[in-house]
Amino acid sequence: MSSETFTVTGMTCGHCAASVREEIGEIAGVSKVEVNLETGQVDVDSTAPLARADVERAVTEAGYQLA
Amino acid sequence: MSSETFTVTGMTCGHCAASVREEIGEIAGVSKVEVNLETGQVDVDSTAPLARADVERAVTEAGYQLA
Repeated sequence: MSSETFTVTGMTCGHCAASVREEIGEIAGVSKVEVNLETGQVDVDSTAPLARADVERAVTEAGYQLA
Repeated sequence: MSSETFTVTGMTCGHCAASVREEIGEIAGVSKVEVNLETGQVDVDSTAPLARADVERAVTEAGYQLA
């Protein structure tokens, strides 16, 4: 089990947070995603550490930026 | 054919605009909805003038406020 925290910029509302949550949640091995809209902090639980490139792709796909 | 302009406050991103567009688009008789995210201006075409209460309900349903 791996727990990592990422920072995402550009989210302005609950829809934004939901999009990021959804895209990151689709990465293989991810079991839990918690997005804090105020801080941009995204906590991700997964079976193994994630490749940053995968997280970056998911965040970009949602329309935001990985800090 | 009726064309009216409303002002909606609280929209911060494209998802917000899409929610408002969708909810107003569900009002009977509405044929076109254009949302300007920057100004909050929403242009609505419909077969007959809309009841403000219906527009207000749609906007509130989407999670925003009719000015």
